[in-house]
Amino acid sequence: MPEEQDLMEKIVSLAKRRGFIYPSSEIYGGLNGFWDYGPLGVELKRNVKDAWWQDVVRSPPAGPDGRPIRMVGLDCSIIMNPKVWEASGHVGGFADKMVECSETKQRYRADHLWVQEVHAVGGADVGEFVAIVAQSEEQAKRLEREYDPRSMQLPEQYEGQLRMKRWKRWGVDRGFITGGTRRFLTLNASELQQVYAPDAENKGTLGDVRAFNLMFDTYVGAMQDSSSKAYLRPETAQGIFVNYKNVLDTTRIKVPFGIAQIGKAFRNEINPRNFTFRSREFEQMEIEFFCHPKEADLWYQYWRDARLKWYVDHGLRSGKLRLRDHQAEELAHYARACADVEYEFPFGVSELEGIANRTDFDLAQHQKFSGRDMTYFDDETKERFLPHVIEPSGGVDRAALAFLCEAYAEDEAPDESGVMQRRTVLRFHPRLAPLKVAVFPLVKKDGMPEKALEIYQALRPHMTAFYDEKGAVGRRYRRQDEAGTPFCITVDGQTREDGTVTVRDRDSMKQERIGSDAATLLAYLRERLRR
Amino acid sequence: MPEEQDLMEKIVSLAKRRGFIYPSSEIYGGLNGFWDYGPLGVELKRNVKDAWWQDVVRSPPAGPDGRPIRMVGLDCSIIMNPKVWEASGHVGGFADKMVECSETKQRYRADHLWVQEVHAVGGADVGEFVAIVAQSEEQAKRLEREYDPRSMQLPEQYEGQLRMKRWKRWGVDRGFITGGTRRFLTLNASELQQVYAPDAENKGTLGDVRAFNLMFDTYVGAMQDSSSKAYLRPETAQGIFVNYKNVLDTTRIKVPFGIAQIGKAFRNEINPRNFTFRSREFEQMEIEFFCHPKEADLWYQYWRDARLKWYVDHGLRSGKLRLRDHQAEELAHYARACADVEYEFPFGVSELEGIANRTDFDLAQHQKFSGRDMTYFDDETKERFLPHVIEPSGGVDRAALAFLCEAYAEDEAPDESGVMQRRTVLRFHPRLAPLKVAVFPLVKKDGMPEKALEIYQALRPHMTAFYDEKGAVGRRYRRQDEAGTPFCITVDGQTREDGTVTVRDRDSMKQERIGSDAATLLAYLRERLRR
Repeated sequence: MPEEQDLMEKIVSLAKRRGFIYPSSEIYGGLNGFWDYGPLGVELKRNVKDAWWQDVVRSPPAGPDGRPIRMVGLDCSIIMNPKVWEASGHVGGFADKMVECSETKQRYRADHLWVQEVHAVGGADVGEFVAIVAQSEEQAKRLEREYDPRSMQLPEQYEGQLRMKRWKRWGVDRGFITGGTRRFLTLNASELQQVYAPDAENKGTLGDVRAFNLMFDTYVGAMQDSSSKAYLRPETAQGIFVNYKNVLDTTRIKVPFGIAQIGKAFRNEINPRNFTFRSREFEQMEIEFFCHPKEADLWYQYWRDARLKWYVDHGLRSGKLRLRDHQAEELAHYARACADVEYEFPFGVSELEGIANRTDFDLAQHQKFSGRDMTYFDDETKERFLPHVIEPSGGVDRAALAFLCEAYAEDEAPDESGVMQRRTVLRFHPRLAPLKVAVFPLVKKDGMPEKALEIYQALRPHMTAFYDEKGAVGRRYRRQDEAGTPFCITVDGQTREDGTVTVRDRDSMKQERIGSDAATLLAYLRERLRR
Repeated sequence: MPEEQDLMEKIVSLAKRRGFIYPSSEIYGGLNGFWDYGPLGVELKRNVKDAWWQDVVRSPPAGPDGRPIRMVGLDCSIIMNPKVWEASGHVGGFADKMVECSETKQRYRADHLWVQEVHAVGGADVGEFVAIVAQSEEQAKRLEREYDPRSMQLPEQYEGQLRMKRWKRWGVDRGFITGGTRRFLTLNASELQQVYAPDAENKGTLGDVRAFNLMFDTYVGAMQDSSSKAYLRPETAQGIFVNYKNVLDTTRIKVPFGIAQIGKAFRNEINPRNFTFRSREFEQMEIEFFCHPKEADLWYQYWRDARLKWYVDHGLRSGKLRLRDHQAEELAHYARACADVEYEFPFGVSELEGIANRTDFDLAQHQKFSGRDMTYFDDETKERFLPHVIEPSGGVDRAALAFLCEAYAEDEAPDESGVMQRRTVLRFHPRLAPLKVAVFPLVKKDGMPEKALEIYQALRPHMTAFYDEKGAVGRRYRRQDEAGTPFCITVDGQTREDGTVTVRDRDSMKQERIGSDAATLLAYLRERLRR
């Protein structure tokens, strides 16, 4: 198994074992594409959201001219008037191309299918097509880039996805490619009938390509007809656009300004995958920044740089983070420029956040569909215009997953008897760590639990704290390392003598003795948590 | 118009005008039962949620024995495996009884309909039934309690709801009741045909009573059939119950302990009403506290008292808050005890939060439906048991609305020339105020804007701040009063001379001159915000 897959399995397993992330409604067999955040996960995700809100709404970085920028928040409903999604183009066009296997009824995204002509080595020439499902658009692109038609073989790291087991069931010992790779969509209908889906046991073939709208729908009110049909929002952005006028009218804010929102969004993905990265229910943190058309390039650069820096500032410093500017041919028809903040997850390089210059596309659409005037009148220049919009749009779950992957490390730590043992540690940025401090009494007697509880209670109003009095202290440290807790405070025999406790640092594993009064401890921890 | 209705209209109007709460997707005509929180509203709601999370998860009050209690957080998906809702009883029984008007197609909750036999005064005896819709269960109960059959009249405050206009259209000058009130459900089918709906123009009659499930449904995956049907959760509680074992297994927590969750829930209400109080999309803050059956009464009392105190601590001190213990006949079949924290809104007394002793009902149901063992084994007593559950379940939107109503006040303040003028002020508890401080330069010259901007930027990392340099300073104060901002800092001519600024208190309107360096200002504000 490739090392990256192995690493991802370790992270998923740790996330479950330590209460970061569980499969949703697991006791009923779960539900594909839905996840629950456990006690540590909910604090991690809260910290990501709170940090973002603080850094983009309440105290954003100064603007290009060094002056404060204007930002406000918003929190819209998930279910909106369905006309919103007609105007945005989601009702008509928010669809994936989908094919279905005649045997398994499994659906695949047509643009993520790769079709290979397969021959057997050491067996009969079977001359069959087999579909390979790329795990992401990025991987599909890599496949295209890295496949070498001369060698007639896929790069080795994709072997696992060639579903060798299935091939063997068909009498194929080892597959290789004879004719080069072709994107699925270039196949015609009769060719489609020769393509076997990767999960089929009995050569189920794929059918026609169908458009599949990704919006979940439901009905509002007691009637279930077209007039009451509504959608779960597939993005939070539109809630901002439809409230742009309300915000202008009720806050006396002036262009340029931004509106920020954090909230759930839903997409009925055909193939949810890569843990929480591509799920059907997810949380977004989005900004729409409204500016004069002439200043759009300036603000695009501002947000492109500010958003990349934000991820670096919160710990993505290992070289796995990158900013990729879209090529002209990649851009949506209304976008003038777009850049992705990408992270190299164990399952491949994938997008954390996109920063796009959407021009006046969205406001013009809503102006047209609602009949409301969306222009802005500048009191000082006496100019009336439709603002252009810069949109930094990030995923909360994706950010949390990137922080989790980046934090994951294995090294060695001494056990009770000083022998070095492997340890797993989550090196979270202190601002994001679910727990900031743990408090241990060395033993459950000699007044230690009482003193430790007293410290625990004194710290709790100021930072997330954990109390643990059970087991060898080395094991208690190890558990906090796995939770990513930056500091552990231990009350021991010396505490009663001189009032000091030990404070252990998660990363250096060094211990210091300091005073155990709340003021001393708080000052010590706060300084070090402010990295 | 009764004073209470008038007050509610003022609050709704202020909420819209100042950017607390807008109708959802308003530019498309809105959507009945859905609301958006604007720039001030989103901060108010965040403050309510953050205060709750801090006070129940991160730093809850000590337990009945004075020791820390064990609480963890959770964040589950809104769409869960549909079996969850079979086990909980929501698929089978989460329904309202509904009747429909043959003319208007309007739906009414049958248990909120009151049927009155009507005769004309000063006209012909029309002898017709007219349905009156009570605005809430509470109001329905009050109607029943306060209606005096001897006077043959409804108490005056319900006149408005007798839809006099409609009656007049039917040739009725003034309605009164001849036969006493009867709850709708006691009518038989033929009687129903004589009942006119309150909104009908042409004597549309009400049809049969139908059960109407309040869960919104949708389909997960590409197939739309019964196997893919799923629901938007109608409450956050079940997400906690289905994760109870996961939390036990992954955190080493011990009974008694609580799991807390904040999140959106959805109910397809037949008649959303009373602003954000009864909407179709809302946010809950719920705790499920798991304890030994013998300790359930103890913990019920603990949470009943703690939750009431929380609302008082955050400002509901005007006598409009009350705790109402349910009578035995009001209890659900599985509940052993229940108390409602109620608030006297302008539209009537309504529930903010319910605290219920749910016994082992939920865990037993999920044990039965999932086949998983939900019992807990106590290491120390060697006892195995199914924990009992205390559930404090509150509404975020309801709490925010109560805080808004309580904060609303009208008094007098001097204008620029010292003449007293009426002002509207929101006297929010400092912890809940959307903005903590506003900074004004007295004039837009003499270096004042620069100094004010410097102060604004220095305060922003520490508390929500607002900067305003436009208009007469008295009007700027007035705007902050309407936003509920506790403090305003003004930079004036004296600032350059002696480095002091004025700080004005929202409630007393008194001004103090203090030093303008960030440390002095922060210390001053922090002390006063910690009320």
